[in-house]
Amino acid sequence: MERLRWRVAAVATVGLALTLEALPSVLRWLRAWRRRGWRSSLRREVLFFPSQVTCTEALLQAPSEGPSGPPADCQCSLPHGESSLSRLLSALLAARASLELCLFAFSSPQLGRAVQLLHQRGVRVRVITDCDYMALNGSQIGLLRKAGIQVRHDQDLGYMHHKFAIVDKKVLITGSLNWTTQAIQNNRENVLIMEDEEYVRLFLEEFERIWEEFNPTKYTFFPQKKRNH
Amino acid sequence: MERLRWRVAAVATVGLALTLEALPSVLRWLRAWRRRGWRSSLRREVLFFPSQVTCTEALLQAPSEGPSGPPADCQCSLPHGESSLSRLLSALLAARASLELCLFAFSSPQLGRAVQLLHQRGVRVRVITDCDYMALNGSQIGLLRKAGIQVRHDQDLGYMHHKFAIVDKKVLITGSLNWTTQAIQNNRENVLIMEDEEYVRLFLEEFERIWEEFNPTKYTFFPQKKRNH
Repeated sequence: MERLRWRVAAVATVGLALTLEALPSVLRWLRAWRRRGWRSSLRREVLFFPSQVTCTEALLQAPSEGPSGPPADCQCSLPHGESSLSRLLSALLAARASLELCLFAFSSPQLGRAVQLLHQRGVRVRVITDCDYMALNGSQIGLLRKAGIQVRHDQDLGYMHHKFAIVDKKVLITGSLNWTTQAIQNNRENVLIMEDEEYVRLFLEEFERIWEEFNPTKYTFFPQKKRNH
Repeated sequence: MERLRWRVAAVATVGLALTLEALPSVLRWLRAWRRRGWRSSLRREVLFFPSQVTCTEALLQAPSEGPSGPPADCQCSLPHGESSLSRLLSALLAARASLELCLFAFSSPQLGRAVQLLHQRGVRVRVITDCDYMALNGSQIGLLRKAGIQVRHDQDLGYMHHKFAIVDKKVLITGSLNWTTQAIQNNRENVLIMEDEEYVRLFLEEFERIWEEFNPTKYTFFPQKKRNH
């Protein structure tokens, strides 16, 4: 009985000594593990443009979305692999409940189709845009409005120059890219896709602030002209 | 002596039992701590614009940088508090070794002074910009070149439309904001400031790719005109 007690005491003492000895290493490891943590668990992606021109029909026609290979009948001559545009489309088409868009320029037909598709699927889409750009030829804004999607725009001297989207109040998509074919195919651009609670909260607050400020009841009918940006 | 051994054994046993009992809670807490981790330990900031116009002399005149209150002799009538612009300036002026700038438009005098200040302090500054915008009146690019800062530009049909900076290869600053007074004071814009190894690595790779591609030995002298963005 006494030998058992001795053993327990010895094991406990050695354990304590080892623990103290290893403490700095353990703490270092814990800190490293902590810093690595969110990277593995949350979606993070950077897209750079110009994007290779690829066929996006598979994404835009599939009854349920997600990257699912080209439909059997796609005969077009474009490559059918992934591109920055197809990855951007996939991130948007993942929406199930809501999509907030806050876009200076929106004329890309593929991105326009994706947004209309989401609207048809019952996703609540809201669009904020810049009043100057939306009046240009090729803008998707008129088509979105015709489809029944809510759009609000500025009347300021300054530009509504944001280019961000929020998917299901969970994923923030933001960067330098205006949603135009010119930008997608020819410009050097970046887009961050971030599943990040804090960033989403801050950008959603900005969206709601602007959404309220651009309430049509506040529109005036002869606003001043803008200066250059 | 025997009582002491008994006590050590008892403490060790109770400790072990408690540890096992608490293990699920401890693991849960560790996971939560891990997810919160990077937020508290690494710099993350979102700046929204338009920015209130504030006096930035304190930042731009101080012999050592950092937000240090206005100099005693600042008599200007502007407010001397913080603004999105002053926070952007502070993030840039924190540079000690290197600053990479990849900017579509750069005409803000304050940001130009900050970059020149860093160059004077021995920070290695490299600038990539768009050839169309740099030729406009008010561009800072000519002044930076005159000060001896290396600048490279595109000759593409597309725009070099990025708006990012990398401070000491540690902090990425990116968003929708062109570095112009118009954008800072009048536009709706966003800028993310992220101390993030992975994002910095990806944007630095993009910078080096473009830096090499825009090597002056590759310039041609009668490039084609650009289309609209």
